[in-house]
Amino acid sequence: MTDTTRAWLLKSRPNGMPTTDNFELGDAPLAPLQDGWLRVENNWLSVDPYMRGRMNDVKSYVPPFEVGAPLQGGAVGKVVESRAPGFAVGDTVFHMQGWREAATGPAEAFNKVQPLPVEDHQWLGNLGLTGATAYFGLLRTAEAKESDTVFVSAAAGAVGSAVVQIAKAKGMTVIGSAGGADKAAWVKDLGADAAIDYKAEPILKGLMAAAPKGIDVYFDNVGGDHLDAAFATARNNARFAICGMIDSYNGGEPAAFRFIMRVIAARIAIKGFIYTDYLAELGDFYRDMGGWIANGQVKSRETVREGLESTPQAFLDLFSGGNTGKMLVRL
Amino acid sequence: MTDTTRAWLLKSRPNGMPTTDNFELGDAPLAPLQDGWLRVENNWLSVDPYMRGRMNDVKSYVPPFEVGAPLQGGAVGKVVESRAPGFAVGDTVFHMQGWREAATGPAEAFNKVQPLPVEDHQWLGNLGLTGATAYFGLLRTAEAKESDTVFVSAAAGAVGSAVVQIAKAKGMTVIGSAGGADKAAWVKDLGADAAIDYKAEPILKGLMAAAPKGIDVYFDNVGGDHLDAAFATARNNARFAICGMIDSYNGGEPAAFRFIMRVIAARIAIKGFIYTDYLAELGDFYRDMGGWIANGQVKSRETVREGLESTPQAFLDLFSGGNTGKMLVRL
Repeated sequence: MTDTTRAWLLKSRPNGMPTTDNFELGDAPLAPLQDGWLRVENNWLSVDPYMRGRMNDVKSYVPPFEVGAPLQGGAVGKVVESRAPGFAVGDTVFHMQGWREAATGPAEAFNKVQPLPVEDHQWLGNLGLTGATAYFGLLRTAEAKESDTVFVSAAAGAVGSAVVQIAKAKGMTVIGSAGGADKAAWVKDLGADAAIDYKAEPILKGLMAAAPKGIDVYFDNVGGDHLDAAFATARNNARFAICGMIDSYNGGEPAAFRFIMRVIAARIAIKGFIYTDYLAELGDFYRDMGGWIANGQVKSRETVREGLESTPQAFLDLFSGGNTGKMLVRL
Repeated sequence: MTDTTRAWLLKSRPNGMPTTDNFELGDAPLAPLQDGWLRVENNWLSVDPYMRGRMNDVKSYVPPFEVGAPLQGGAVGKVVESRAPGFAVGDTVFHMQGWREAATGPAEAFNKVQPLPVEDHQWLGNLGLTGATAYFGLLRTAEAKESDTVFVSAAAGAVGSAVVQIAKAKGMTVIGSAGGADKAAWVKDLGADAAIDYKAEPILKGLMAAAPKGIDVYFDNVGGDHLDAAFATARNNARFAICGMIDSYNGGEPAAFRFIMRVIAARIAIKGFIYTDYLAELGDFYRDMGGWIANGQVKSRETVREGLESTPQAFLDLFSGGNTGKMLVRL
């Protein structure tokens, strides 16, 4: 029995936009099983924009990746060896030892999937970090309610497409932005009342046309000109949930805002959040999201890359809009 | 009896920084007294940065000034004629018909001063719009509490100097920024734990030195690089009360933010406000602020200009830092 697993290691820290040269496929040690531990073989790996922040040597809400060590991220796998009560060989688990083929660790580091009739990879998507981020950001951080007009950027992305569908399931009016006609069409298919192709027209122009009376909620995945357009169109007491600012993850010019002063006149409330702020409410999330998936109100779409080798490129493609819906790697 | 009063009229709307050419001294009609009305002669006029916004033809939280009509603003005066029960000749009142010598109107448009042992002009300063803005922004919008480290920009200004003193009266740690060594020294005299002269060093550098553990609250009067420095130094769950962004009132380059993405990691909550959002709590304000003024915990300083003629220049000087404390015009 080998004590290593094939894994993607961080070879070097990127300066600006990362490249495949920042990653190295190698062998990572697998700690031997102790009492209470599991060994898992991964079937699905998640790549997510937030991982870009962990490539920098900056303390943030999660510690930075270490150079020379395996990267981490969401993964779904099967238990192949168990020394932990309650876990049997063949159980499906989701956990954070992604970017590699196999993982060992104490059972607390692995979550058994809930008894819901969904495909395994959904535990990385609408029932995972992605869906929880959409759910808590929209309903808790932004306190969106039925009568609200909601604007969500990157609405054809993993989180954004979940926001669109949760908002519609809750009876809100939803406007989504996406880059390209195909993606905008899919956002409309998801139920959005309007979809703006920001590659075809300036986002501010599109948003003013789609929401002539303004917006009550903005779910921000992009920052930059999208956030500025939200400042420009915010109604009184609008709430902005700041989930991500993919525009800025790879450096470049700092974001400039022409309309930020509207924060005062419109009494806009802006709040950053991470889904882990709401772990105590995960029960609500599984109940609601499980129900919406079961009755078809929340659908998923995946962009699937094949094989461990494809993981870095799958990750990099997130920043050029290479995904529609959730980007996944199938092992 | 004349039916007009000398008043400053808006002659034209400024494009960028206003000049004295945008103002015209003229005669404004005074509506004849009806039952329930007062006639007041003004002794003190207030000029405030927010008035710049009203010079634009843009609907905001207060309607724009009209070209050819008198400007409006805070004023303190004496009742010279009363047809309203409860108001006697000689009563001191504060009201919003400033930029002129005399005013008439229904008694509801005038407020009798409270029975507090303060000079009349304080009803335009620490007991007026200025003090109420500081009080509610710090204690309500930002929910600042005793253990917090508070950063306030334009701390030698009318609102900022009140924020410094309220925060110290409440036992907080306070860092203020001001432009110039004299102003910074006065901010320290007010009780601030540290004062940054942003003309002597970059605000971010000064703030990192003054608050090595970061800030919990930012009271923003400036926007721009001050707001960006607050993003950079915010501790987890910091609260920003956005009161003003004097950096942007006269146009120029849109504000660029290098550190805005910290909103997510630090879960910063940002909220715009106007003191009128808290009118229902004015009783708390008069009780607390009256007490602090009486016991010397809140002091005032004024930059006083003489005569109605000086009003436009007094207003314009707000944007070049011509005032320390509250800028007033004495008639």
